[in-house]
Order: sequence, then structure tokens, then C-alpha cells
Amino acid sequence: MTTQPTQGGFIDGVHHMTMRVYYEDTDTAGIVYYANYLRFIERARTEILRLFGVDQYVLMNAPEEERISFAVTRCEINYVRPAHLDDIITVKTTTTKLRGASIHMAQDIWRDDEVLIKSHVEAACLNAKGMPTRLPKQFVQNARELIPLDL
Amino acid sequence: MTTQPTQGGFIDGVHHMTMRVYYEDTDTAGIVYYANYLRFIERARTEILRLFGVDQYVLMNAPEEERISFAVTRCEINYVRPAHLDDIITVKTTTTKLRGASIHMAQDIWRDDEVLIKSHVEAACLNAKGMPTRLPKQFVQNARELIPLDL
Amino acid sequence: MTTQPTQGGFIDGVHHMTMRVYYEDTDTAGIVYYANYLRFIERARTEILRLFGVDQYVLMNAPEEERISFAVTRCEINYVRPAHLDDIITVKTTTTKLRGASIHMAQDIWRDDEVLIKSHVEAACLNAKGMPTRLPKQFVQNARELIPLDL
Amino acid sequence: MTTQPTQGGFIDGVHHMTMRVYYEDTDTAGIVYYANYLRFIERARTEILRLFGVDQYVLMNAPEEERISFAVTRCEINYVRPAHLDDIITVKTTTTKLRGASIHMAQDIWRDDEVLIKSHVEAACLNAKGMPTRLPKQFVQNARELIPLDL
Repeated sequence: MTTQPTQGGFIDGVHHMTMRVYYEDTDTAGIVYYANYLRFIERARTEILRLFGVDQYVLMNAPEEERISFAVTRCEINYVRPAHLDDIITVKTTTTKLRGASIHMAQDIWRDDEVLIKSHVEAACLNAKGMPTRLPKQFVQNARELIPLDL
Repeated sequence: MTTQPTQGGFIDGVHHMTMRVYYEDTDTAGIVYYANYLRFIERARTEILRLFGVDQYVLMNAPEEERISFAVTRCEINYVRPAHLDDIITVKTTTTKLRGASIHMAQDIWRDDEVLIKSHVEAACLNAKGMPTRLPKQFVQNARELIPLDL
Repeated sequence: MTTQPTQGGFIDGVHHMTMRVYYEDTDTAGIVYYANYLRFIERARTEILRLFGVDQYVLMNAPEEERISFAVTRCEINYVRPAHLDDIITVKTTTTKLRGASIHMAQDIWRDDEVLIKSHVEAACLNAKGMPTRLPKQFVQNARELIPLDL
Repeated sequence: MTTQPTQGGFIDGVHHMTMRVYYEDTDTAGIVYYANYLRFIERARTEILRLFGVDQYVLMNAPEEERISFAVTRCEINYVRPAHLDDIITVKTTTTKLRGASIHMAQDIWRDDEVLIKSHVEAACLNAKGMPTRLPKQFVQNARELIPLDL
């Protein structure tokens, strides 16, 4: 019995993705190293993009005129409580803005009913030259079906 | 709909754990950074220990006389084919030796029917002073039930 | 001819620490992975604490009543330009507040005369129970000698 | 007063590179996480390649017919003693074989007069299609000047 890797899903427009804390994530202070929470929330963003129909590996290797990528331009993180080895944590992501060439998300990390991390992330859609470019139409359409908010 | 984090399981005595490759795992050469495969195989070992009844976080915080930990003493890795962003890979772990104070494992990483990595890992069971100590009886008993080999 | 590891130093109250970008820091997009800039700025904070007379490894292993640690409570990062493999970058840290139990820093990362990252970090001084506690006197005194600002 | 990032150098044909252990390198067991020693030894290999006249970032972005890269094909690591936060460690690298399309190195990590890690690494020189290709002449010539062994 094997299981597919965790990918999470939307519940009422909020993406939930649950993961385990491993040794690699912790530091000698006995808690998760502060930069590693950014790895956790990026996994959730990658899974959300996949649900929106964006296969980043395909896009990255597309012909130059169709090649787009997403780059984080700003990130705010509030560290409320630490996570520890073996914790099961859930990244909950709410899309807060979906504009022409950018997407904003609130991404919180929970352990049961305790919030550990509260973050806001802004990402830009870039073309092959690294310049801002419009989000693909199909992406926006898929997003609007999965997140029923008026963004 | 949320899912529990991937934990894998035993199939005919071989532990299978499937995971996804994320941005954090790759490097500018476009493939998974060579040290990160060691993170993948360690996740599988942690899940195997959990199935053998070892909760590492509990053991690490146990009273000094009961405190044990596992430390890798030797690792051999052959890099056969690289993994890429978004790949779904499976760590297959076979326990090859279970001795008084140590455990040996063969850990290979597969993508579909292609082997990417072949590795051998030796770990020692240590007491609170960092000295080799016998594997807990319950651990050995659980291991013998899950891995039907004559080790 | 060997050299001591880079530790940086203060120039007019601003701490400068120069480092190299290695494969481990980059991702498949060909740039430094966004979470890894937090590793770079943390190295600088650790060196600053050392210059302020704080040996974190000693403090962490001190008797419980003297044990203190520093935990990041908030972090804001603006990603201006990406760093690449082999880049030589400099973390410039300005201490902006030094209060009873907390310290605020502005930490920017430069490559030559281009700013790559602008960040603000707030850290709290915690006792062995994880509760906020006053910064050690010697620490504050050392800090005031090295950073000539009126904080 | 700033310092250039540590790059190490050759002493009697052995490359020495000294570095500091930071929080990012450690785990909740209070020691350096086992995969991170591979990051340390890779930094040394990158600096050695640079001294041999190989600028990996330039080579990676060269026209397709001149593009080469180095990929680790095999790695053996013996973990002798753990490193801790704040340790100053030195990676000592001896080139043991320099063949048509591959290079073998023994890479040990020391803290003062104690060896922590003993490793052997084999790397292949690959062309743009990922096939083994001859090491560049200039590389071999530079190598033979810096490492006076009969390889």
C-alpha cells in the first residue's frame, strides 16, 4: 500500500495542504528553522498553481514566447508559535488578490487548532525576459472556479 | 478535502514512500541538488522508525536513562539519473541488517520504472551520552513483524 | 594558505558580511531560492551577536536560569533582483531598535552597487521557558559601543 | 572592514577551505544534519574548480557546443564525529584521480585536530546533452600545476 504525495485541496475556496515536519526542517534550537516555513508555504503555492492548470516544469521549458514563471516579490511572516519534529501541520492558503500580472496570498500554518505562522506573499508572473506579463487566461479562469471570492 | 501527509508503508517487507520534488529540492543545473536525495531517504527512515514504534521526538525528550537516538554512521550513494522539478518519486527501503546496536538499509529512489538513486545507509542506536546502545526490544519485535526477512 | 571563515564587521555602525552563492542556494529557475536569502541574513545576525559577546552555543547549553535564545518573531522581505550561482553578495545590517527584550534590524543584500533584497527582522530574547526576557546587560553595552546610533 | 568570502587554497596539493557552522546547518538532535556535510564539501569542490579555471556559471550559459557541467556520480561518507553550531570546520580535499572524463576526490572535514567526516566523491564531466565528455585541456593543465601528484 503506497500513497500519492500529499497535494491538498480547496475547502470553501481555502487551499489546505497537510505535511509532516522532518529532521531536515529543524535546527539545534529544537524547533523548525525560520526559513523553512517558506519552503512549506511554497509547496502549497506550487500545488495551487497545479490545480489552476499551471505545470511549472512544462512552462519553464516552453518555447521562449510562451515561457512564464512566477517570482515572489514580497513576503511578510509573523512567527506565532514554533513547530517541532514530527508535527503534522497544515498550510491554509487564501488568494486575496488576482490582478493582471500578480497574485497575492495569505498563507497561515496551523497545528490542530493553533496557528503557528501567519504570512502574506505577493508573486508576479514573468515572461522569459523576467518582465511582468499577464497571467494566462486559462489560469485566471481555473482560479475563479476554485476560489469563489470576488477578487 | 484534506489528506494526511504521505507516510508510505510496507509491501512484501519493502517500505515504499512516494513524494513530490519541489523548487526547494532543485538547483540551477535544473535537477535535484545531490545532497537533497539524503533528505528524501531520511524521511523514509523516519516513517519506518515510526512504524516500528519509535517516536523520535518522544525518545529525544525522554528521561536521560531512556533517551535514545539514531545516527547515520555511513552512507554510500550512486547517482544513476537525475530527478527534476514536479517529479513524483518513490523511496524504496529494504532493511538488510538488524544487529544489536545498528541497522543497515538499502534505499533506492525510483521514478516510475527508472531507478534514480541507489544507496546504502548504516545507522547506530545511541544513548544520551552518544554511546552505542542496544535497539529497544519492542523496536526489534515490531521490525521482525513488518520485515519478514531473516536478518 | 587558509583563511578564517568570513565574519564581516561594522563600518560606521552598519554590519557588512560578504559571502558567495553556491549550488545549494539556487533552484531550477536559475536563481537563489527565495527562502535561502533568510539563511544569508541569519548568518549575519549570528556574527553580529558574536561581536556583541553572545556565543549562542554556550548560551543554549547554559544552566537553565541563565539560558537565553533569540527567536525571530517577524520578517518582511522585498525581493528586488535575483542573485545567481557564483555571485559575491554582501549582507548589510543596520540595528534599528534595541529594546528591553527585543531587537529590530534592517538587513539588505547587495551585489556590487545593486540592491537585491530589502528586509526587516524583529527578534525576541527568550528564557529557557520560551518567555520574553531582558537582553543581557553586557550585550546591550557591547551593542552600544559598536552601533553609534541613538536606539 | 569587510572580508571576501572564504575560498580556501592549496597547501602541498591539498585544498583547505574553512567555514563556520550556522543554525541552518544543524537539526533538532543538536548536531549538523547528515545531508548538510555534502553541502560543505560541494562548496570546496566549487572553489577548486574555480582555481582550475572553471567558472561554472559561465560554462552553464555557454553556447551549446561548449557547455559542460560536473555531476556527482558516486559519494561515500563516513560520519566519525558530529559538528555543532558555531564550530569552525575545515574541508580538506585531495584529488585522487583525474581521468579523461571524470575526477575523484577524497574530502575530509576536520575541527582542529579531530576528523569529523571522511568522504570519497566521484564526478563526471558532461556535455549539454548530459553525456560524458573530456575534461577541458586548460582545466587539466591548471589542475596539474596545483596538485603535484602523479594522477
